[in-house]
Amino acid sequence: MNTLRVTGGRVLRPDGRVTESDVTIDRDAGTIVAVGDETVSDAEAGSDAEVASDGETLDASGSLVIPGLVNAHTHVAMTLLRGYADDKPLDPWLREDIWPAEAELTPDDIEAGAELGVVEMIRSGTTAFADMYFAMDRVADVVDRAGLRARLGHGVVTIGKDAEGARADVEESLAVARELDGAGDGRIRTAFMPHSLTTVGEEYLHEGVAEAREAGVPIHLHANETEDEVDPIVDERGERPIAYAQDLDALGPDDFFAHGVHLDGSEIDQIADAGTAIVHCPASNMKLASGMAPVQRLRDAGVTVALGTDGAASNNDLDVFDEMRDAAMLGKLAADDATAVPAEAVVEMATAGGADALGLPGGRIEPGAAADLAVVDLDAPHLTPVHDPVSHLAYAAHGSDVRHTVCDGEVLMRDREVLTLDAERVQERAATAASDLVDRVSES
Amino acid sequence: MNTLRVTGGRVLRPDGRVTESDVTIDRDAGTIVAVGDETVSDAEAGSDAEVASDGETLDASGSLVIPGLVNAHTHVAMTLLRGYADDKPLDPWLREDIWPAEAELTPDDIEAGAELGVVEMIRSGTTAFADMYFAMDRVADVVDRAGLRARLGHGVVTIGKDAEGARADVEESLAVARELDGAGDGRIRTAFMPHSLTTVGEEYLHEGVAEAREAGVPIHLHANETEDEVDPIVDERGERPIAYAQDLDALGPDDFFAHGVHLDGSEIDQIADAGTAIVHCPASNMKLASGMAPVQRLRDAGVTVALGTDGAASNNDLDVFDEMRDAAMLGKLAADDATAVPAEAVVEMATAGGADALGLPGGRIEPGAAADLAVVDLDAPHLTPVHDPVSHLAYAAHGSDVRHTVCDGEVLMRDREVLTLDAERVQERAATAASDLVDRVSES
Repeated sequence: MNTLRVTGGRVLRPDGRVTESDVTIDRDAGTIVAVGDETVSDAEAGSDAEVASDGETLDASGSLVIPGLVNAHTHVAMTLLRGYADDKPLDPWLREDIWPAEAELTPDDIEAGAELGVVEMIRSGTTAFADMYFAMDRVADVVDRAGLRARLGHGVVTIGKDAEGARADVEESLAVARELDGAGDGRIRTAFMPHSLTTVGEEYLHEGVAEAREAGVPIHLHANETEDEVDPIVDERGERPIAYAQDLDALGPDDFFAHGVHLDGSEIDQIADAGTAIVHCPASNMKLASGMAPVQRLRDAGVTVALGTDGAASNNDLDVFDEMRDAAMLGKLAADDATAVPAEAVVEMATAGGADALGLPGGRIEPGAAADLAVVDLDAPHLTPVHDPVSHLAYAAHGSDVRHTVCDGEVLMRDREVLTLDAERVQERAATAASDLVDRVSES
Repeated sequence: MNTLRVTGGRVLRPDGRVTESDVTIDRDAGTIVAVGDETVSDAEAGSDAEVASDGETLDASGSLVIPGLVNAHTHVAMTLLRGYADDKPLDPWLREDIWPAEAELTPDDIEAGAELGVVEMIRSGTTAFADMYFAMDRVADVVDRAGLRARLGHGVVTIGKDAEGARADVEESLAVARELDGAGDGRIRTAFMPHSLTTVGEEYLHEGVAEAREAGVPIHLHANETEDEVDPIVDERGERPIAYAQDLDALGPDDFFAHGVHLDGSEIDQIADAGTAIVHCPASNMKLASGMAPVQRLRDAGVTVALGTDGAASNNDLDVFDEMRDAAMLGKLAADDATAVPAEAVVEMATAGGADALGLPGGRIEPGAAADLAVVDLDAPHLTPVHDPVSHLAYAAHGSDVRHTVCDGEVLMRDREVLTLDAERVQERAATAASDLVDRVSES
């Protein structure tokens, strides 16, 4: 067996225990075959995994081995617009700053921005993400080269477009969903991604969702992000957005909705009944003053909650450690209860919750699971002492504390060096692309 | 002149401009003598500073030179309790977890915890802090050796103590305020620090404040942190806490109050009229579900607002970069306005606002000012591109992006290596002290 062994560390197990265990990976299969004494044979009766002791090793001494983090909602190429326009509410920020800049984005820019975002994610221990953007063939190519997993989709916006333009946008999203699914040795999956229930017209939503169901791909959209997005639906339809989504057949068990800030009790119940996942984006919700999502109530109702950074223009980074900290802190404020959304909850949301929301492998370190993991160095002043390593993940660690990142059995970063992309070249290319983009926007 | 030159970087100026300038420091005087072409002679007519081009240099290429950050409210030795008890509200957290652990703390423990916290602060670009704790002679010794500035005080709690014990605690705080003021070559200043208006009895507050005024030291206390702290004062006295503080003569222009979460409009006006500063602690306020401080309203009223991490047990780190990000994000939610508490506001709060609140030099990079600064490396994927370096300080940078830290003209960290303390030894000592402390608590 072509093995990779992660040795000498402490391992965060799916049940929340932390054990001193080596992790053995079958690189060809991309799966974990043993965690300490527990092997695939224990997990899956009849299997006869043979655990070799040779092969490559990753040193995890003084470190915590965790499932690779999942960034379940982003627009990765928006790294080019990091810090481009801050301190504005969602609607004017989109109309005055972001959309005019995006109008000037070329496929090359999107590739450059995606490379930058992917490097940032690998460096902060993220192994899977969901991306809603444009030129998704270029994003898929970057994901393939970087070695990550992703659920990708073309974002549809039909408002301001004529019927032909609107239909073409829906078709593009469906084409991406059909054609890219399974790319990157199966690491790339897809979804139909209407931007939201207010930025896509009802007929296009109906048609697109029906075709997506036909194609067997899930649906990802922004839902209940701001009151300005909820009110028009209630005014026009006499029902709230989640009921509208249900009418559209867009509220299924494989679907995942971003934000879910302004949800009432009946909507939380509908989401729970449908088995749809919610991707909580606390930093974006705070920065755009969108509000506080009812995360504890969603979890109490049994909803799968994942975490997303949203785009780097509204965050301003793609570091899921920040998102864990934000989610734990904001969740307490939202619930007016310091016991709400505790450390172990946000770690679950960033790992198993994310993988489950996206319908991707990973999220758990156990025999038979996908070999997606991050090794977090706990040997630092800001992480001393270690009374509780899970507390540190939620409240004290940052992406910069990640030593190694592994996805699908391959080492994507070793000792802070990204192996699958040339980080220095990626950074230079992105800086140039961003600078040229700003010049074009100011000239247009 | 014994100079230190910070060369090749971009400099954040007091007016918010960012200029490509070298910064020249007179190490003996501990002051900045030139920023680019602007020299002390320009700033102070009659002075004849002679700017040498030799002496030591710090490379700031690709970096942003900013005023040293100010952590205006912490309990630095509580680093030993980092992650010790999370996800609990303030009152049970203090009574069930923190106070029993603190009862076992020895002066040696406090020194070990202070060393750890000081190393963490130097590594994240903080050059000055305010500390309320115990065994303050030991903390002062650590500050002296580390080379930072600090405003130190012994925290007084009289509830649960007899008159003799209460009076001894007040005396201890006054003795610290009188005796340590001016220590560490003048880098250490002091304050009288009653814990809060509910944990110190009225007669002790009266006596202590009068003596503090006599001694000419400011007053620092926790104010309006939770509703549970406001309500008893309103019930018993028929006035709100800030009015009570005014009655006590504790609301002066040199005083600084931590938290200020639950303030009504009249209290904001009283604070503004008195010239008292508020130290905003967003992470602690979120984590303990204390609430959202009205930061934009305080700033609009003309109040000096600083930032504090609070202790590492309720944060869980001492990184002021996190606090800037939290303050900008939470300030928007509190105001329900995405334009509130913008990036430049939180940077001001973390620098000039902090220095002004504490009455310490520093906080501004300009000729004649104290040579307290941090050099932030912008050459990293998560800080690319650089559309706006001030945005990056607020929203994307972390303490780990700081390359060099300078205080009072001395280099405390160069290329991430702390020069004034042995960081490795400090970390080991603190880990051992924390482990032993937990053993003692569980045995007691």
